[in-house]
Amino acid sequence: MSRPPLPRRVTVVEVGPRDGLQNEAAQVPTPTKIAFVEALAASGLPVVELTAFVSPARVPQMADAVDVARGVARRPGTRYSALVPNLRGLAAAHDAGMTEIAVFAAASETFSQRNINQTIEGSFTVYAQVMRDAGVMGMRVRAYLSTAFGCPFEGQVPQARVVELTERLLTMGAFEVAVSDTIGVATPGQVADMVDLLRARVPAGVIALHLHDTRGTALANVLAALQAGITTFDASAGGLGGCPFAPGAAGNLSTEDLLYMLHGLGIETGVDLDAVVRASQLIGPSLGHSLPSRYLQAASSVSPR
Amino acid sequence: MSRPPLPRRVTVVEVGPRDGLQNEAAQVPTPTKIAFVEALAASGLPVVELTAFVSPARVPQMADAVDVARGVARRPGTRYSALVPNLRGLAAAHDAGMTEIAVFAAASETFSQRNINQTIEGSFTVYAQVMRDAGVMGMRVRAYLSTAFGCPFEGQVPQARVVELTERLLTMGAFEVAVSDTIGVATPGQVADMVDLLRARVPAGVIALHLHDTRGTALANVLAALQAGITTFDASAGGLGGCPFAPGAAGNLSTEDLLYMLHGLGIETGVDLDAVVRASQLIGPSLGHSLPSRYLQAASSVSPR
Repeated sequence: MSRPPLPRRVTVVEVGPRDGLQNEAAQVPTPTKIAFVEALAASGLPVVELTAFVSPARVPQMADAVDVARGVARRPGTRYSALVPNLRGLAAAHDAGMTEIAVFAAASETFSQRNINQTIEGSFTVYAQVMRDAGVMGMRVRAYLSTAFGCPFEGQVPQARVVELTERLLTMGAFEVAVSDTIGVATPGQVADMVDLLRARVPAGVIALHLHDTRGTALANVLAALQAGITTFDASAGGLGGCPFAPGAAGNLSTEDLLYMLHGLGIETGVDLDAVVRASQLIGPSLGHSLPSRYLQAASSVSPR
Repeated sequence: MSRPPLPRRVTVVEVGPRDGLQNEAAQVPTPTKIAFVEALAASGLPVVELTAFVSPARVPQMADAVDVARGVARRPGTRYSALVPNLRGLAAAHDAGMTEIAVFAAASETFSQRNINQTIEGSFTVYAQVMRDAGVMGMRVRAYLSTAFGCPFEGQVPQARVVELTERLLTMGAFEVAVSDTIGVATPGQVADMVDLLRARVPAGVIALHLHDTRGTALANVLAALQAGITTFDASAGGLGGCPFAPGAAGNLSTEDLLYMLHGLGIETGVDLDAVVRASQLIGPSLGHSLPSRYLQAASSVSPR
């Protein structure tokens, strides 16, 4: 049987220290966060999003952004990124030594207004300024496009709108758009269709997929996206983060589960899976619950052998 | 982009009441088991494996096999099956009114000897007798071929052996072989390769896949198998069962997760997903732990809407 060819190499973007910890109830001590980021980078992960320069009143889990950004010993060859919501966040990230940032847009109007308190258009006006100023400072900007496969408030999100907003973010200056299944509702046919629509307008290399495993479909969606030509995927060590729209359910796709499948498919990542497991085990005790990663649970259990 | 065509319809074989409960520490009351099986059948699941006629000393969870088999009100159009290890089990299943049974073989010699206390050849001798006698009694026999994608003791299992043993089970009289990833190690390329090898020798319609989600890859493996032409998949409501080789880790692929993906792909199953969720919620409180199904966890959580 002929099958779609798969890419030889995939880039895994580690978002656990930011997207993961931001959605955990626990306040993790700053030195633990720093050790976690350093362990993740040491595993060979090429990109680590390490914090967010956001309002400590709104997101207390990220109140130590400056200390984390300054405290992490940089590993040569690793890229470090941080989320910023506006020009003030950009300035703070720059002051803390960041050279790469990310902005967080939404494809659903209701989600945008409830999550970042701005209309989609309002947020794009801000992000255009952020990207322009970041460019002047020599910083690279990644963009998230959340709720691209469904919205907790609006339900279905038109695919044409996702394509249009992705193109606008790239035109504004983003080097990559992480098209995001924020609530983990996507199934593989939907992912393949979306990738096909996006690839008709922009190169595959500027599209990342940010998948959540809330209904168990994340790795099947990765497989469909690999077959459709995507080579960059976000993941969170241990599946850190949960799902704010379904308390107790899984959220971010786990880095371990993603790596296990990619390596099993013969796809290179440059990452040592065992080292990621150790990083997750390092932060796990600070969270007050077990991490949802299937691979981590299997690796952490006692074998009868 | 051209993609492999998917089947229009899939048969989901529910194994929770047998393979699931057999691997749970809790002893679930017989009336709860009967209500669980009846709820699963009422959801539209076409096949329910409801118990095992095995030694109560070895598998105390199945000690009430006769009461469960006799107690379940039969739903027209639903097939009911039960595991039997030998001629004594066959007689007991027949006496309890069963018309379909399953036998459990292994593709790994060490696993066969440790799990069912017989060599592979010894077990095949027994199963040949079971299939012959079952045929005389007008009963259909399904066969499991466990550890087809890896063994907890031997590691890799040769694909040629899996193909050979599958063919022998079919020749002996099995109407279907459930090729099983007993420890949840398979990745999608391995599954696609195995299906291609099997389909070169036997029709796709006599092959079922029995996948475990121990490392998170089960649904990606289902997608690869669908693309390779497989149309029958085993699953366990709620992901019931755990993994005896990795305590605390996930085991059986969850029926809810499987249905969510299949329906999202536009594939018909005839099953009401919400009704399966209710069946899992019915048995959940008897187990002493939360069920691992991602979809069930999301469906059971409180939405902020």
